[in-house]
Amino acid sequence: MLPANRLWLSEGGVGLLRSLRHYCQKTPRKLTICEAISHLQVGTKIKVQGWVRSVRPQKENLFLHVNDGSSLQSLQVVASSELNHRLLTFGSAVEISGSLVTSPSRKQEVELQADQIDVVGECNPVDFPFKIKKKHGLEYIRQFPHLRCRTNAFSSLLRIRSEATAAIQQYFKPAGQEKNQDEEGHQHFFSVPAYLTVSGQLHLEVMAGAFPGVYTFGPTFRAENSQSRRHLAEFYMVEAEISFTQSLEDLMKVMEDLFRSTTEHLLDQCPEDVALYHKHVSPGYRDNVDLMMKKSFNVITYTEAINILNSSSKKFAFKTDWGCDLQTEHEKYLVKHCGDFPLFVTDYPYALKPFYARDNQDQPLHTAAAVDLLVPGVGEMCGGSLREDRLDLLKTRLAQAGLDEAYGWYLDLRRFGSVPHGGFGMGFERYLQCVLGVDNIKDVIPFPRYSRSCLL
Amino acid sequence: MLPANRLWLSEGGVGLLRSLRHYCQKTPRKLTICEAISHLQVGTKIKVQGWVRSVRPQKENLFLHVNDGSSLQSLQVVASSELNHRLLTFGSAVEISGSLVTSPSRKQEVELQADQIDVVGECNPVDFPFKIKKKHGLEYIRQFPHLRCRTNAFSSLLRIRSEATAAIQQYFKPAGQEKNQDEEGHQHFFSVPAYLTVSGQLHLEVMAGAFPGVYTFGPTFRAENSQSRRHLAEFYMVEAEISFTQSLEDLMKVMEDLFRSTTEHLLDQCPEDVALYHKHVSPGYRDNVDLMMKKSFNVITYTEAINILNSSSKKFAFKTDWGCDLQTEHEKYLVKHCGDFPLFVTDYPYALKPFYARDNQDQPLHTAAAVDLLVPGVGEMCGGSLREDRLDLLKTRLAQAGLDEAYGWYLDLRRFGSVPHGGFGMGFERYLQCVLGVDNIKDVIPFPRYSRSCLL
Repeated sequence: MLPANRLWLSEGGVGLLRSLRHYCQKTPRKLTICEAISHLQVGTKIKVQGWVRSVRPQKENLFLHVNDGSSLQSLQVVASSELNHRLLTFGSAVEISGSLVTSPSRKQEVELQADQIDVVGECNPVDFPFKIKKKHGLEYIRQFPHLRCRTNAFSSLLRIRSEATAAIQQYFKPAGQEKNQDEEGHQHFFSVPAYLTVSGQLHLEVMAGAFPGVYTFGPTFRAENSQSRRHLAEFYMVEAEISFTQSLEDLMKVMEDLFRSTTEHLLDQCPEDVALYHKHVSPGYRDNVDLMMKKSFNVITYTEAINILNSSSKKFAFKTDWGCDLQTEHEKYLVKHCGDFPLFVTDYPYALKPFYARDNQDQPLHTAAAVDLLVPGVGEMCGGSLREDRLDLLKTRLAQAGLDEAYGWYLDLRRFGSVPHGGFGMGFERYLQCVLGVDNIKDVIPFPRYSRSCLL
Repeated sequence: MLPANRLWLSEGGVGLLRSLRHYCQKTPRKLTICEAISHLQVGTKIKVQGWVRSVRPQKENLFLHVNDGSSLQSLQVVASSELNHRLLTFGSAVEISGSLVTSPSRKQEVELQADQIDVVGECNPVDFPFKIKKKHGLEYIRQFPHLRCRTNAFSSLLRIRSEATAAIQQYFKPAGQEKNQDEEGHQHFFSVPAYLTVSGQLHLEVMAGAFPGVYTFGPTFRAENSQSRRHLAEFYMVEAEISFTQSLEDLMKVMEDLFRSTTEHLLDQCPEDVALYHKHVSPGYRDNVDLMMKKSFNVITYTEAINILNSSSKKFAFKTDWGCDLQTEHEKYLVKHCGDFPLFVTDYPYALKPFYARDNQDQPLHTAAAVDLLVPGVGEMCGGSLREDRLDLLKTRLAQAGLDEAYGWYLDLRRFGSVPHGGFGMGFERYLQCVLGVDNIKDVIPFPRYSRSCLL
């Protein structure tokens, strides 16, 4: 049914349109806070739903800030004091209808003049572990994994994780075919079909035996008996495997490209959320990230790394003879030594690497074609290798380890149309630590599970 | 160094361009088979890498088909008989350089005239379990989970899985903001920020307490002691949770939209791969899919379902009194009865549903606001419910089950700014079965793991 002011039809088309528009506005449109503050809807009746982040009652007016997780910024709501209510507290869930208008204040561009405020879920501010106007540290909010999404820091983190996930998927499998072609219709390096599958490098190798490139991204489980700031029992990993690849340089290029394209996407798509971290969590760190975006990562061999460590005057807890595994203390020193900047270390001792790493067949220092990417503050972020694609070499090594029967299927991959290939894994949480400058890995994953702790 | 024909510079710009282009062609460009057959590169020198799908030596010429998994179609290669080689067998891995030309045959648009063929990985055709020109059934290739990616059927399946994954992510989190806005700048229903996270509905609910909508997509584990054609111990699940939702209709709309938008993407992005299934695996099934794209899914209540079953003349193994769980035989009958078409069944008995399902508080038939989506050939594909958002009701029910202490954190979500919300899960493999008409769930997942079987 059209409203009474349809009588103004005689005023012509304009009148009709106006009255119709006015009519449409009677059913307020539901918007996310992100949409509401985007300025596109100013002058319309809208409805928003979210959680109260601040309540400021004044003599005639009531000021609220409402957030629904769709953006870091909250929406300012102005209401008549009559709409105040004892349940309208910090943390309560509300549904508010009103007119979106240009704000007279410089603090925000738009504000909502409320006609109606409903508290749909109350929140006792005495019991609620987060307090109004208080800046809680990451360590404090970590105690409440079921509620910390309601803080600015963790809400930002989840938006960043979501965007980083999208960016990684986009890197491996760009949305439109057209976008990946340069002027000559040629697709860029990795825009081959890529397939999300079950996790595990050996399983990815199965698929690399039939496709140009495959990747997977999902949860990974390690029984790490560690309470460190960089280990979790459950973490997320990106793994990629590339067929017909014969050099570590190819793998390093993909790792570096992946890092840069994901980071560029983040800086572009959620600048405010990233800025929150660079401002409050790791002040001054943005410069480091900017440099990583511009300057090529450093590359040294394991043998060079050992030479650097041996000529250092620093006393290490672990010895650094050629053949030893690099410990966290060594990795940190190397990264610092090379300008506190991401560093590839290549060609590790053959004996240190798993059976699938490709034998460099060198002498007298016997190495495998493996590479780790070490980054400031975190240490190892990526690890990869060319895979042993030669049946006889792989067979011998598996037999020496007594694994040839269990891995008969893996040998089959080298028996039937084997190709030179290689791949790597990147720890997603360590990537987030590296880009945001977050010290503790437990602060970049929704529900951290680690040795002797599984709160949720 | 420029080549000798630079001498033709005097002929003017055209000559220069020609000679330069000719020069560039001396380093053949590496293309995927998909790129090579796309016709864009005809007239250039290229290099392809892949696996031999057929070898046909003739008196003067050798014909090969090479596939690299980037498309269902293989590339025809024509070479002088002199390039033949005893290792050039079905299944071997090859690297081939030559000129891409328009094919004189009608069977393909382009073909590669080979200058050089290298076998990089041999394949003994006697030992290789797949035979040239033989059509192996899905059941046969299932025995070789590490090699079946090399068959047309499974290669297509993996491309379809990959596209379906991309489509699901795109449904929940469209790539560009602009794309999701209608003329008035309003975003469509679900284009709120959506977050990939660890699996598990209760954990999603944690986030739904701070965001408009959240989703997750990843592996899920169930100790299903079943050898059925629709159960796996490890399967992939899409789960979504929507805040501020008060009706099952909202949830059903999202499920139906998700089904349709994902399927539309598949039909659009990998028509040949889907057609392979609709032609060879489930002949005639495409009509069913087309109907699902057009016609709204059916909706009945559980109570109506029981009435249908009770008035049927069919003898069921399990009784169908009000209050009983629906068995596979019942689900199949209901789907058939309602036109062999997707069917929502809503409002199940309260006692049958888990503690988190929202109490409809009805009488005398006490139901919960839960819904299942049943589809032909598969049965249950999605299951969802509104969640009990009222603290007192949830508390009572958890206490009755002796779970109130273990779920203290879950009760907290209702204590601090609770909102009406609901969500659902969709079995990804069952979705693929439903769209492709595949009878056995083991044929739509790379590495099927099920009761008493974990081949890889």
